[in-house]
Amino acid sequence: MDKPNFAGATCPTPHRPKETVLLGHGSGGTLSRELVEQVFLPELGEAAPRTLDDAAIIETTGRQRLALSTDSHVVEPLFFPGGDIGHLAVCGTVNDLAMVGAKPLALTCGFILEEGLPFATLRQVLASMRAAAQEAGVQIVAGDTKVVQRGSADKMFINASGLGVVNQGVQISGANARPGDVIIVSGTLGDHGITVLAAREGLGFDTDLISDAAPLNHLVQAMLAAGEIHVLRDPTRGGLATSLVEISEQSQVTLLIEEDKLPVKPAVRAACEMLGFDPLFIANEGKLVAFVPPEDAEAVLATMRQTKYGKNAAIIGRVLDAGKAEVRLQTAIGGTRLLDMLPGELLPRIC
Amino acid sequence: MDKPNFAGATCPTPHRPKETVLLGHGSGGTLSRELVEQVFLPELGEAAPRTLDDAAIIETTGRQRLALSTDSHVVEPLFFPGGDIGHLAVCGTVNDLAMVGAKPLALTCGFILEEGLPFATLRQVLASMRAAAQEAGVQIVAGDTKVVQRGSADKMFINASGLGVVNQGVQISGANARPGDVIIVSGTLGDHGITVLAAREGLGFDTDLISDAAPLNHLVQAMLAAGEIHVLRDPTRGGLATSLVEISEQSQVTLLIEEDKLPVKPAVRAACEMLGFDPLFIANEGKLVAFVPPEDAEAVLATMRQTKYGKNAAIIGRVLDAGKAEVRLQTAIGGTRLLDMLPGELLPRIC
Repeated sequence: MDKPNFAGATCPTPHRPKETVLLGHGSGGTLSRELVEQVFLPELGEAAPRTLDDAAIIETTGRQRLALSTDSHVVEPLFFPGGDIGHLAVCGTVNDLAMVGAKPLALTCGFILEEGLPFATLRQVLASMRAAAQEAGVQIVAGDTKVVQRGSADKMFINASGLGVVNQGVQISGANARPGDVIIVSGTLGDHGITVLAAREGLGFDTDLISDAAPLNHLVQAMLAAGEIHVLRDPTRGGLATSLVEISEQSQVTLLIEEDKLPVKPAVRAACEMLGFDPLFIANEGKLVAFVPPEDAEAVLATMRQTKYGKNAAIIGRVLDAGKAEVRLQTAIGGTRLLDMLPGELLPRIC
Repeated sequence: MDKPNFAGATCPTPHRPKETVLLGHGSGGTLSRELVEQVFLPELGEAAPRTLDDAAIIETTGRQRLALSTDSHVVEPLFFPGGDIGHLAVCGTVNDLAMVGAKPLALTCGFILEEGLPFATLRQVLASMRAAAQEAGVQIVAGDTKVVQRGSADKMFINASGLGVVNQGVQISGANARPGDVIIVSGTLGDHGITVLAAREGLGFDTDLISDAAPLNHLVQAMLAAGEIHVLRDPTRGGLATSLVEISEQSQVTLLIEEDKLPVKPAVRAACEMLGFDPLFIANEGKLVAFVPPEDAEAVLATMRQTKYGKNAAIIGRVLDAGKAEVRLQTAIGGTRLLDMLPGELLPRIC
């Protein structure tokens, strides 16, 4: 029996809005294909080799240690000085891989779009993803797009998942901190968090700050060539304090951090003082903290300072003893206080 | 200088609601850890080996062909007869890997949660993910959770990305259909789509249907052992018709499908007739379509019928000629019509 032409019945959209995401763009059918062919593929360009199969194939040889990571991004607003949600998604996942010493091999991206999102917004985000992927030297090999009704999501969320390969001999983990290790940060703290905060409407303060979001994989490879690295972590949500507490717990060591060694831009310091925040708890998206054996610390630091994203690298402390998980902050006025993780929420949707 | 204790200032929640997702659970700090330790890890159990590093490491040896895929899930309602968003997320990504012939090695999961989501809901979803992962024989090796303000997302979205390995000699692609290939579906069409539709409030019809969502990797491995496979695809969004059109275009071949061979449950057929839908366009989440050379078709079909998820497998058509991308449906009353992809949106948020 012939069925009614449901297509005509359910999609009577001869005047459908052009250049806007519709529910049909998530249907898996013709409109989904149009979105991929007319928006995703042109904007991603050489960063996204075309495939129509359900999964991408990557060939590797030899004994491999593969790294796998995932990160969803819900940052609000989508665009902020120095970046946007697309740039952030690529950098975030590249950095998660880099923090175990992996070179990124491939990314996948899953988009959740709100009905009504302008194509222009999507195009701008995709162009940023392309640029970030090219800078990191990684391709986006598989993707997925869902569309939800207006009001069921806030404009656009992006998941980026990544596959990387770790060279033999590289053993980086939050559990590898050792007494004597020198603690290095790659640059100034809190730029991303304060930038996003300032970009939100109605918060009533202006800065010249831009987000630090950046792919750190080339920096990490340069560091690995310069010396041994025990621990790497990118202090995103929860800031440097949270990362340090995690590492102290994973390795069961006591850390000593010197407050006056922490690199903080004057604008970030001023904003924090005004708002009652501490830069140690503010998110970064293009910074890392490294634990390096003392004999390699100067070589690693010197190498970092020659790179684009490590030129403000600084030694901020050291690992004291094993046995007790504790992070001590030696304050600028000579006191000592213990650092804890970010206890609640400081700035929702910072990434 | 000592900073004010911002934690106390911004998170004055001595009476914070228990057993409910708060913005702070996405902070990256203490509450995030509590959520992981008290909800995620216990519910996922052995399906999620614990790691606190930014990426999981997987060791492989020898020459490898790796498969990578991603899928975000936004299904509404979260729970429906036969499954839920968690089960669907694991099955969807396992199946994407299986459709290129890959055995799943590892999954990552990214959660976007709406503030106020009850822990009980999250726990139920995680328990389903654990069961699906165990059935598929895959582990969830890395995860990420973001929380957005109430109203900025609809309860819960899940991205699952997957890594698999494809044995040497297996060459499955939508571009590999050849004239003479026999087209097999693994079971009845449309069960998932009609089940989710019926589960939505206010639609005013009841069925005994349950979703067909299932991990198909074991079925695919059994099929590969039984004969050569040219093409595999799981006809999810857009239904079987959309998958067939895609394959005909990728391979530049003409397909002939016989309508009276299509396995469709009476309840699905009845719902489709009532609603003016065609089962060929309704989503499935535990079905596949395979293109098999004629000499292997009977052996592959017989093997499929011995498995849990292939017992209703049926031959539904064949590849006629190369050169013209076209899908012809020979209707039950003897006519022929051309199938096209799903043009617009039939059922938003079906997966």
